Amino acid sequence: VIIVGEQINTSRKRIARAVEARDRDAILEVARAQKDAGADFIDVNAGTFLGRETECLCWLVETIQAEVEGPLCLDSPNPDALGAAIERHRGEPLINSISLEEERWDALLPVVTGHPCQVVALCMSADSMPRTTEDKVQVATDLVERLTVAGVARERVLVDPLVQPVSVDPSLGPATLAAIERIRVELQVRTICGLSNVSFGLPERRLINRTFLTLALGRGLSAAILDPTDRGLMAALLAAEMVLDRDEFCERYLDAYGDGRLGG
Amino acid sequence: VIIVGEQINTSRKRIARAVEARDRDAILEVARAQKDAGADFIDVNAGTFLGRETECLCWLVETIQAEVEGPLCLDSPNPDALGAAIERHRGEPLINSISLEEERWDALLPVVTGHPCQVVALCMSADSMPRTTEDKVQVATDLVERLTVAGVARERVLVDPLVQPVSVDPSLGPATLAAIERIRVELQVRTICGLSNVSFGLPERRLINRTFLTLALGRGLSAAILDPTDRGLMAALLAAEMVLDRDEFCERYLDAYGDGRLGG
Repeated sequence: VIIVGEQINTSRKRIARAVEARDRDAILEVARAQKDAGADFIDVNAGTFLGRETECLCWLVETIQAEVEGPLCLDSPNPDALGAAIERHRGEPLINSISLEEERWDALLPVVTGHPCQVVALCMSADSMPRTTEDKVQVATDLVERLTVAGVARERVLVDPLVQPVSVDPSLGPATLAAIERIRVELQVRTICGLSNVSFGLPERRLINRTFLTLALGRGLSAAILDPTDRGLMAALLAAEMVLDRDEFCERYLDAYGDGRLGG
Repeated sequence: VIIVGEQINTSRKRIARAVEARDRDAILEVARAQKDAGADFIDVNAGTFLGRETECLCWLVETIQAEVEGPLCLDSPNPDALGAAIERHRGEPLINSISLEEERWDALLPVVTGHPCQVVALCMSADSMPRTTEDKVQVATDLVERLTVAGVARERVLVDPLVQPVSVDPSLGPATLAAIERIRVELQVRTICGLSNVSFGLPERRLINRTFLTLALGRGLSAAILDPTDRGLMAALLAAEMVLDRDEFCERYLDAYGDGRLGG
């Protein structure tokens, strides 16, 4: 599974302080820790810096890529910020995210088609958040069709079925899991999701997040936005991939065991 | 999900010693601990007492039912032991298990049809252990058909898809998970499985067992044979049932949190 490390997000106080102070070392430490823990992409999100998001996101891209190998996930609902950040990014980033919301679509499409990148297609329609499997698959179908018509190859798209809190409506859990499977099978496209929304408002959130990740992997999830330094979560991920026959000769599981990464 | 507590099994040294010594208190302590932890059935297995299995199993049934409410799961491949134990059992036990192995089928069928009980139908054919989804579903189909023809109502059957070690062949993981779903959907019958076989030969077995349980619940597993006193396993079970919308108002999850059963 493709791992997007979610820790560099200014909604976390430690990160906001580091960005405010332009503290390179603090940011690089979090980037390296996630890379070492297995992140394929390092997510960067400066969404809390209203009015300064663009400059902060660009600083994050330049700071991290100066020292840490590999692509970033440029994470914003703001097309201006994404457009500026993608110009500074070396290699092919993951853009998170485009959706059917009209303004966002119109502003972001040229960014996505104008640069080599992968793109998260978030299941939000022009005017609502889909809550049933059927609605999620329908929005995904529209997104994938419109993206391919616009020239974005299907292989570059990762559909996010929109994970919503089960505390709000428990039917959202099975609806999202079923959508992951149907989108993969019916649209022949990869899927991605964040985990933390699912447990919003409930106690022992890490337990819920790793359980949801396991269930989503069971439906064939291709990528996850998560904290790769959460050992319990990564242990669940490694065990799930092994049980699902996505870890040849149990090699990654046994390596992790050998390194002491499965215990505790 | 229906929970069958697996701890009273003479393959565990502590239990073998207690059965050998006819130590009622030791057995009752393990039975009560599992009941308190949420077991719907207490499994009893005296299979290691070759030549004395029948008397040991009967002693277990009488000892436990004298003090602990609720039905037992009578667990043996031996029709004589099961036949004797079911005579002593009060209420409706779960018989674990019948299969298509010829001798076992012939000897056990009268026991199952002659007493009010539920029965585990284990996916073993007359001459082999099925290893693919297709083969497991085929054996399950034969079992359910033959049982219903013999007068065992479908509602009393729990099909065990036969969980095999992923260390032996990693394709067994997805094969078994897919079989759970297909048996439930295509045969309209409940499913049950044990967990510990899946992790045979690998380290951190509890991690693998709870991951497999989560994935199996995601496929609609109806019942599990497990250690209900394993807190990590039960926490995973409660979280999975909540995410899968089988815990109205998140009530059991929040109760468990309130009782301190989710942490650690």
